[in-house]
Amino acid sequence: MDTPQSTKGGLLPEKQRDRLHTIIYEADTPLGKTFDIILLFVILLSIVAIMLETVAPIRVKYGYALGVIEWVVTIFFTIEYIGRIASLRQPLKYIFSFYGIIDLLATIPMYVGFIFPGYGYRFLISIRAIRLLRVFRILKLTHFVGAGNQLTAALKKSREKIAVFLFSVMVICIILGTLMYMVEGPESGFTSIPTSIYWTIVTLTTVGFGDITPLTPLGQFISVIIMIMGYGIIAVPTGLVTAQFINNAAPPQLNTQACPNCGAQQHRDDAKFCYKCGSLINPDKTQNAK
Amino acid sequence: MDTPQSTKGGLLPEKQRDRLHTIIYEADTPLGKTFDIILLFVILLSIVAIMLETVAPIRVKYGYALGVIEWVVTIFFTIEYIGRIASLRQPLKYIFSFYGIIDLLATIPMYVGFIFPGYGYRFLISIRAIRLLRVFRILKLTHFVGAGNQLTAALKKSREKIAVFLFSVMVICIILGTLMYMVEGPESGFTSIPTSIYWTIVTLTTVGFGDITPLTPLGQFISVIIMIMGYGIIAVPTGLVTAQFINNAAPPQLNTQACPNCGAQQHRDDAKFCYKCGSLINPDKTQNAK
Amino acid sequence: MDTPQSTKGGLLPEKQRDRLHTIIYEADTPLGKTFDIILLFVILLSIVAIMLETVAPIRVKYGYALGVIEWVVTIFFTIEYIGRIASLRQPLKYIFSFYGIIDLLATIPMYVGFIFPGYGYRFLISIRAIRLLRVFRILKLTHFVGAGNQLTAALKKSREKIAVFLFSVMVICIILGTLMYMVEGPESGFTSIPTSIYWTIVTLTTVGFGDITPLTPLGQFISVIIMIMGYGIIAVPTGLVTAQFINNAAPPQLNTQACPNCGAQQHRDDAKFCYKCGSLINPDKTQNAK
Amino acid sequence: MDTPQSTKGGLLPEKQRDRLHTIIYEADTPLGKTFDIILLFVILLSIVAIMLETVAPIRVKYGYALGVIEWVVTIFFTIEYIGRIASLRQPLKYIFSFYGIIDLLATIPMYVGFIFPGYGYRFLISIRAIRLLRVFRILKLTHFVGAGNQLTAALKKSREKIAVFLFSVMVICIILGTLMYMVEGPESGFTSIPTSIYWTIVTLTTVGFGDITPLTPLGQFISVIIMIMGYGIIAVPTGLVTAQFINNAAPPQLNTQACPNCGAQQHRDDAKFCYKCGSLINPDKTQNAK
Repeated sequence: MDTPQSTKGGLLPEKQRDRLHTIIYEADTPLGKTFDIILLFVILLSIVAIMLETVAPIRVKYGYALGVIEWVVTIFFTIEYIGRIASLRQPLKYIFSFYGIIDLLATIPMYVGFIFPGYGYRFLISIRAIRLLRVFRILKLTHFVGAGNQLTAALKKSREKIAVFLFSVMVICIILGTLMYMVEGPESGFTSIPTSIYWTIVTLTTVGFGDITPLTPLGQFISVIIMIMGYGIIAVPTGLVTAQFINNAAPPQLNTQACPNCGAQQHRDDAKFCYKCGSLINPDKTQNAK
Repeated sequence: MDTPQSTKGGLLPEKQRDRLHTIIYEADTPLGKTFDIILLFVILLSIVAIMLETVAPIRVKYGYALGVIEWVVTIFFTIEYIGRIASLRQPLKYIFSFYGIIDLLATIPMYVGFIFPGYGYRFLISIRAIRLLRVFRILKLTHFVGAGNQLTAALKKSREKIAVFLFSVMVICIILGTLMYMVEGPESGFTSIPTSIYWTIVTLTTVGFGDITPLTPLGQFISVIIMIMGYGIIAVPTGLVTAQFINNAAPPQLNTQACPNCGAQQHRDDAKFCYKCGSLINPDKTQNAK
Repeated sequence: MDTPQSTKGGLLPEKQRDRLHTIIYEADTPLGKTFDIILLFVILLSIVAIMLETVAPIRVKYGYALGVIEWVVTIFFTIEYIGRIASLRQPLKYIFSFYGIIDLLATIPMYVGFIFPGYGYRFLISIRAIRLLRVFRILKLTHFVGAGNQLTAALKKSREKIAVFLFSVMVICIILGTLMYMVEGPESGFTSIPTSIYWTIVTLTTVGFGDITPLTPLGQFISVIIMIMGYGIIAVPTGLVTAQFINNAAPPQLNTQACPNCGAQQHRDDAKFCYKCGSLINPDKTQNAK
Repeated sequence: MDTPQSTKGGLLPEKQRDRLHTIIYEADTPLGKTFDIILLFVILLSIVAIMLETVAPIRVKYGYALGVIEWVVTIFFTIEYIGRIASLRQPLKYIFSFYGIIDLLATIPMYVGFIFPGYGYRFLISIRAIRLLRVFRILKLTHFVGAGNQLTAALKKSREKIAVFLFSVMVICIILGTLMYMVEGPESGFTSIPTSIYWTIVTLTTVGFGDITPLTPLGQFISVIIMIMGYGIIAVPTGLVTAQFINNAAPPQLNTQACPNCGAQQHRDDAKFCYKCGSLINPDKTQNAK
């Protein structure tokens, strides 16, 4: 029962551990899938309960029921967290992984709130919501996962350009925000440079809350420039991502064949001869050539 | 007069039924076209009447006339609805179709409002407006219908990616909305998590009503991140749809046939001869060529 | 001096008329160019004068000077308008052309305002501003005119799709606006269906003034749907225009040659043989073929 | 020590000058890199100090410390500015260059504020913020610099079209702004034509502050047109930049050479041999081939 491996790596005997692992981590077996779907509903339930509790009239009426739900959910999460640790050979890897930390943070605030009531209690809300991110993995819809991967890939490839773009925008916002502070001043609501930069970003991104608005003609003129700039430069991230999508999706102009002679790649799709050494690329297909 | 078919499938004798069918459902015959255009104007009239009735000064002045129009329109719709049922062999199919239900819902509220005045009366408004969607079919402008189909096709093809995108945005909004509730609290108008998530979506989509705005420096900082995120990730749906439009527009011009003689591909869709070697591309289809 | 033609078609003797025509209508001769540039500055001057007159403190201080400028400008426009008519063989064509009507409308309000003071006076402002549209023609910057033509061409080609898109958006706004009126009602500022539709468009286009905002949870929920819809479907016009720009800019896949045998066009760029009749497309370039 | 060159062109002896030049202008040597990173931090420090000083509660508490930081930073900038001048052969070129003027403007306001306190003092803020633009050069991240260059190149190429677009938008805004002034008038907050044009731009760019909103039905109708226009024509800059990004990314892979043997075109840029017939493309460049 106690092989050296199992005592080294895990908290449970090998067989039970592997069984538990299949249920908790895999979604291909019937039991694993059932577990994942239950988990998904429990997460949704906990988020809805937390949300409704912050709505004053609902809290007054159903506060007790919502509290019960939250405790039930917390106990479920606690068992699940212990189960996740117990079912792994190297539990520390999970504990310090991104989702491991989220799982812990989503579980403990309820206990913390029990010991130190009031303020600390509120914090658990946000952390538990983060758990919803796990939904993608649980559903394992290959179609949508594929679509998601394509999106992520396109965004990753234009990451550097987007970073340069955002940094430039930030510098522009600091300069224009400071200028607006100088022009408008605290009388118009531009109480400080940070506030003024906040306003500049609100305007540049075309959000435009209207909590602060320029009152002087010069301030309105600079605002107009900020708005038109924001209206125009939205083209930059859009263009970058679109170009990436098109280049990803469209059949590339250059094929994936390698020259049998010199190994050169990325030939034109209709190339018969290697562009580097002039030898036939695919002799089988073009027997009668030359 | 009573063939087995007509008694089985419809409410009217075969001849009259088919005549009525031509008028109501077809737009190619002069009578059918006239009917459709009249219907279009009656729908527009009813929507305008309903709209104007909600404007207080107009209701005071022309309330009676508008009420008359609404009753006339309702009677017209009632006759049309009965006509549609009577002109079909299988009227049940129409009754439970999307437009069948809309037609019914657009007709009955006036009668319901007559029996139970007040609240129920107001509901008919929205439902009748939905009928305008039928306009496309009535006008039968092939050019525009084609353009509409292309739009729909492009949107349908990027449906999955848009779904993944929207779900991710939703999760982000839940997390950031909760965070904003924790940071700002009810004092700044973030009265509950649902309200806070509502505000996050208002901000992320760059709508920015300004009914709720962050007041603390940390809240403003998170807002800035939400805005820049919203300003940037609008690139994703835009890029997806654009890539779809480009891929739809460009390649369908060239087909997938290969020349039986030289193997050249990407011929025009209506090509008879290979553009490379001049031989017949598809001898079966064009027997009398050459 | 009086040829039958000149007495028939124009108001001035042929020579003077043509001279005047060169000055007013052409921008290639030194005199014509000078005239056009003066005209440009006069238009700008008149717009700036009208703008400044509406600013209360400036009107108080410089009202008299601005009034003088407006009269000088009006007299200049009057002379120019008469000159345009006198310099043409068929002056009626100009008088009833788009710019002819604008020129008249930009000139008479000052005289009308002289006879009927007050209200009528204000109307001239907008009409004179429209004249600025002529600036493009006056500057005759070929580079920019070319860029402008490309823009116009791309927009024109996607006109039908944009029309279908806008009509669909309009129908959606009517339905959702009515729904919001029913849900929120006059208490939240949704005083009538037209106002409610106005609010829906403000929200869907992500403008979001914040003068009217939903107060009920259901209203906020529908708002969120409107916002996300608006945030997403902006991809449609953007995608359409982008696809048009790319297809316009990129070397078209199909060339402009016509088959010397059957006259078929739009061959592939690398086509040797006509795709329709199989004959050589350009015998001179491909002598050694077949 | 005094060569004719050094006395002509610089303020320091040649050796020291070149040494200083390496430290201040180069980022490849260890000393130069250290200097640049220190400079970067000092600039950031000065901006943060200036920002925090405008926040009332922080100014009250830490005003003295922030003042000390600003003076230390100013002295650092003074020394750096003198060093930059001293390390160059032709210091005047730097003094009157873009960054030279910024460096001066970022240094003197503190001294000016010492002599003329109050108003002048505030002006230094904005100017010093501009210095952050230098960050790109200092970091010398080749990847990001490359991405930045690509962005700039794409924006430059569509400059003319964007200029035509912005001018057209400006003319539309003048006309529609004047129209809104006429329709709404000062009672709704449209106090003058410039204010009305400001509002039109706020609406067209979908910012929508909500500080001014139309109150009349006609005004709301025109607003709706402005909004839909703004929602639609954002496609133009987006489309232009996207098309530029795509054309930049895709076609430069294939060159414009034609094979001297078979005339095939669109070879890869580094192609030596024709992809169609295998003969040398450009015999002059590749003499030793074959």
